[in-house]
Amino acid sequence: MVAKLIDGKQLANLMQEQMKEEVAQLKERGITPGLVVLLVGEDTASQVYVRNKDRVAAKIGIHSKVERYPDTITEAELLAEIQRYNEDPAFHGILVQLPLPKQIDENKVLLAIDPKKDVDGFHPLNLGALFVGKPTKIPCTPYGIMKMFEYYEIDLTGKNAVVIGRSNIVGKPMAHLLLGQNATVTVTHSKTKNLPEICRQADILVVAIGQGNFVTKEFVKEGAVVIDVGMNRDENGKLIGDVKFDEVSPLASYITPVPGGVGPMTITMLMYQTISSATQE
Amino acid sequence: MVAKLIDGKQLANLMQEQMKEEVAQLKERGITPGLVVLLVGEDTASQVYVRNKDRVAAKIGIHSKVERYPDTITEAELLAEIQRYNEDPAFHGILVQLPLPKQIDENKVLLAIDPKKDVDGFHPLNLGALFVGKPTKIPCTPYGIMKMFEYYEIDLTGKNAVVIGRSNIVGKPMAHLLLGQNATVTVTHSKTKNLPEICRQADILVVAIGQGNFVTKEFVKEGAVVIDVGMNRDENGKLIGDVKFDEVSPLASYITPVPGGVGPMTITMLMYQTISSATQE
Repeated sequence: MVAKLIDGKQLANLMQEQMKEEVAQLKERGITPGLVVLLVGEDTASQVYVRNKDRVAAKIGIHSKVERYPDTITEAELLAEIQRYNEDPAFHGILVQLPLPKQIDENKVLLAIDPKKDVDGFHPLNLGALFVGKPTKIPCTPYGIMKMFEYYEIDLTGKNAVVIGRSNIVGKPMAHLLLGQNATVTVTHSKTKNLPEICRQADILVVAIGQGNFVTKEFVKEGAVVIDVGMNRDENGKLIGDVKFDEVSPLASYITPVPGGVGPMTITMLMYQTISSATQE
Repeated sequence: MVAKLIDGKQLANLMQEQMKEEVAQLKERGITPGLVVLLVGEDTASQVYVRNKDRVAAKIGIHSKVERYPDTITEAELLAEIQRYNEDPAFHGILVQLPLPKQIDENKVLLAIDPKKDVDGFHPLNLGALFVGKPTKIPCTPYGIMKMFEYYEIDLTGKNAVVIGRSNIVGKPMAHLLLGQNATVTVTHSKTKNLPEICRQADILVVAIGQGNFVTKEFVKEGAVVIDVGMNRDENGKLIGDVKFDEVSPLASYITPVPGGVGPMTITMLMYQTISSATQE
């Protein structure tokens, strides 16, 4: 078996083209979807992410604004900024780029964003809605993965899905979304024993552990669908995933590459949720 | 091996005695924890549950009040009642007994309760806090099960935990609590394939499927801890669990009986959370 590639870049482009048309139609009705990104400090990776978001927003026709703050900003000042954008009707989505400097309580910041404008899907109220199976705003990475399953017609009902990683922004929301599609879901993590053995039972394997080439062929059952959320740099600075692609792809039925897999979908879902915020007013 | 019984009744009594003392001390400081139960209609099971809650509250010294409404009450009327109790400082806990009649949107009702007074732990904001690993109010049944693990010194780290059932009030919160204690967690349900095989891999098996005697010895690994959330009536009207106790107990290391296992803990945790609401003001 040679795995079929899940081409996230292609699907992202397709969705972005559709959104571009939708935004054009919205503008005729006098609505311009707006997204504001609040960026604190000079973190290099964050700068790159924010630039990419800005570029994709522009391509689709979303009004995008990046607000930069020094890393000396106080929590109260940042909360006041969020409040200002909560009340600003020009912006339907507010994204606070993480991580934040130490003096700022991330939880307080996420709670301060109007849940309706929380296009990252990190507000506890939105996570609670996901929990009870009635999601509205969904963390973008797992949401993008669900769109991949849908587009490639990968049925999840009754499948054994194993998620490696239990973060609030990938692993846990992924588990709820898979459960919502009737998969049997196992969440594994650093304390899991016999991880390769557990993963070998997976029909669907989602890897979000943040360690380059961590998942080898010992983790993968013949015919499994393998989704790689990893974004790591190898010793030569090359972007690699959490999955040892060359070794795993002969076993898998479907696999996502890195780059060009999950990454482009994440940013696409951010725009998708900004537009849905704009139309739900 | 003969399983050690997890005596929920005994642990519940022990906790209730401790709470009784705590309430007595609170009263000396002028605080009387108050719990109001809103009961709509004449559902027989609900009547029994509410009566039991009232009895345990009285035993502990919690000020307990049951408000009864006809099943013709409108959603707006019920929401107004909740608002009234949200604002009433005499009550630290508000519980709306489910199920509700058809004309009332359960979600709207749960959202209307002040999250600080949500002693059932069903408000999406509280479920979201549980999701991100910072729970404050927790659904009482899984919370009670965690107290059992603690009391019987059953370590969960690295254990394979399998939950049968994915309800918002038992299965899903149970999964998050187990994950928070570093178990590897699998959630199974009616669409799961090879359920007995998956369950046989469990070190910890939590059964909340609502079918009498559903879990037989084929589901249980030697030495597993088996927690039975079921409350079913057999053909003679006898209360039975989801687990075939006589068949499973020779295999398990620990097992909860029905009655006298999970049931008494659920109601105890409701009181526990009412008291913690009263002291957190």
